[in-house]
Order: sequence, then C-alpha cells, then structure tokens
Amino acid sequence: MAPATPRQHGNREALAPDPALQDAGFDPHLPDVDYGVLDSLVGYAIRRAQIRIYEDFVTSLAPWQITPPRFSALIIIARNPHLKLTDLARILGIARSGAVLLVDALEAMQLVERRPAPADRRAYSLALTHGGRKTLEAVTEAVRAHDARIAQALSPEEQATLKSLLSRLGMPPPAA
Amino acid sequence: MAPATPRQHGNREALAPDPALQDAGFDPHLPDVDYGVLDSLVGYAIRRAQIRIYEDFVTSLAPWQITPPRFSALIIIARNPHLKLTDLARILGIARSGAVLLVDALEAMQLVERRPAPADRRAYSLALTHGGRKTLEAVTEAVRAHDARIAQALSPEEQATLKSLLSRLGMPPPAA
Repeated sequence: MAPATPRQHGNREALAPDPALQDAGFDPHLPDVDYGVLDSLVGYAIRRAQIRIYEDFVTSLAPWQITPPRFSALIIIARNPHLKLTDLARILGIARSGAVLLVDALEAMQLVERRPAPADRRAYSLALTHGGRKTLEAVTEAVRAHDARIAQALSPEEQATLKSLLSRLGMPPPAA
Repeated sequence: MAPATPRQHGNREALAPDPALQDAGFDPHLPDVDYGVLDSLVGYAIRRAQIRIYEDFVTSLAPWQITPPRFSALIIIARNPHLKLTDLARILGIARSGAVLLVDALEAMQLVERRPAPADRRAYSLALTHGGRKTLEAVTEAVRAHDARIAQALSPEEQATLKSLLSRLGMPPPAA
C-alpha cells in the first residue's frame, strides 16, 4: 500500500490544463525546453496526448459545459440502469469523493437524478433525466466529431493499432 | 473561449484514481458493464491507459512520495536553469495555481527551492536542492523501471509505434 500522502496530493495535482492556454494551445515540445528523460517515457507521451485531447474536448463541448469526466459519467449512467455511486466510481476508476462531485454537478445541470434504490433504503440509484437523455444525444455527436478530429492525422488502420497498443499497456509480458 | 464554469469544475473533476482501487487495480473493462460509445473513442482508450499507468507509478514511487506531476516538475526544473513558475506551468500544460501547489509540495519535501531571480526583484527562479538532485537520480531510475514494466507487453518496435501515433494526435490531417 502506498502511504496516503502522495495520493492526497495527487488528487490535487492531477490537474486540468490551464484555461489561459486555450487560445495558444498546449505545445508538447517547446523549442527551448530540455525535457530530459520525459521525452523517452511512454507515460509522458500519453500525458502529452491527454492534455491536447482535453483541450479540444472542452472547447468542442463548451456549449454544453461538458468535460471528459462528465461525459463518461453520463454514458455509463445512461447505459447501466440502477447504477449506484460506488459502481460509477469503480467503473470510471475515480475516488468515491470525486464521483460525488461529478454527480452533484450533473444534478445541478439537471442532467442526472438520484432515485431511491428499491433494494436498499439508504442507497439510491442514478438515472438520466428526460432532458439529460436529449442532451446526451447531441453531446455524443459532438464528442464523436471531436474524437474523429483529434485522430484525423491517423488512418483508420493506425487508429485501430493505437487503441490495440494502448490496451496492452500494463499487461504482463508475452509468454516466452 | 469556453465559459469558465466547466473548466473550474474540470479542475476538480480531473481526478486521480481511487486509493481503494490500488489492491485490486483498475479494471478498464468490467465484464457486466456497458461502456457504450466510450469503447470506440481514442480519447477514452487513452484515459484507460492513463489510469493504469498512474496506479503503477504511484505504487512504484511510494517510497519517495513522488506522483507523475511531481516527477515531471523535478525533471523540468533540473534540466532548465532559472525557470520561473509560469514557465513550469506552461511547459507542463497546467494552470499556474496548480504549479504553485506542486512547487509548494516539492519545497516542503526539501527537493526544490525558490531563489531570487537576478533580473526581476519580484520574481524568483526554481532550482533543485542538493538533496533534490540526489533524490531525483534514484527516482529517475525507479520511473524508468516503472515505464519499462508498463510497456513490457509491447516490443521495442511497438513502443516506438505507440509513441509516434500518440504524437500525431491533435495534428492536422495529412495533405491530400
């Protein structure tokens, strides 16, 4: 088990890109900067891509005020009836406290509602509102367009290769 | 420009993985879950990989309490003398407020110090302490080992392909 300290800080340090960067855009390779070992790490290559994708996502979805975590939550809630908050956190790989913030925001936007869970009087399950379903249709189209634009430099075959290689990260080495 | 609201929320929602997930580990494809469109998005494939990498990184670096943002900051500060806080934020693609938190944590860990900037009496530049340099040597070895382990299912050629494909995300389409 890791000690609690770095994770607590990690929560605060897992930062969204700077809003001020939006106009210029994040430059992953500034010309006068020495990135040292970062340039050789798979992990940092993914971080660089993630920032660029996040920027384009937030810009593209600005009319709906939808961020990547909000979109993922809406899809998971829409596709999986009677989901509880702990399920949502586990599926998305986030802390329960983060899922609470997410659902609070989506509830305030009148996209999601908490409903009493039939089997457990203390619990509730998550559901999209009627407005949430309508919004998610439009939002999904915008996200598809964003994702296609982000990957537009890659051929369909290269996109499939990229997804396949990504899915093998963290896997055990191939059997000898 | 996107309105401020989603980015403010985005900062809070860009969440580190759940500490409680650490023992079991994040499962990017839970068997009974319907991921809908998420399964087809390049952006979500990257998010899944990022969570797994983050988990392994934090576990591997637990002896030093080093998170990915802390490591990136240490490397950039070590390799680029006389760096200011705004430079660090721009290079890492994070908000200035986030860079302040990062540097505060690294200063509390006695790895980084703020030094008066010669050219501007109101500013300061960032530098590693003597202890910070020693620590960064050991930490860099641990990060290299983590990164190699994360990518151990891929051949060297596949790793190069992955990095190349990632670097082309967000680029314009190829000229027809």
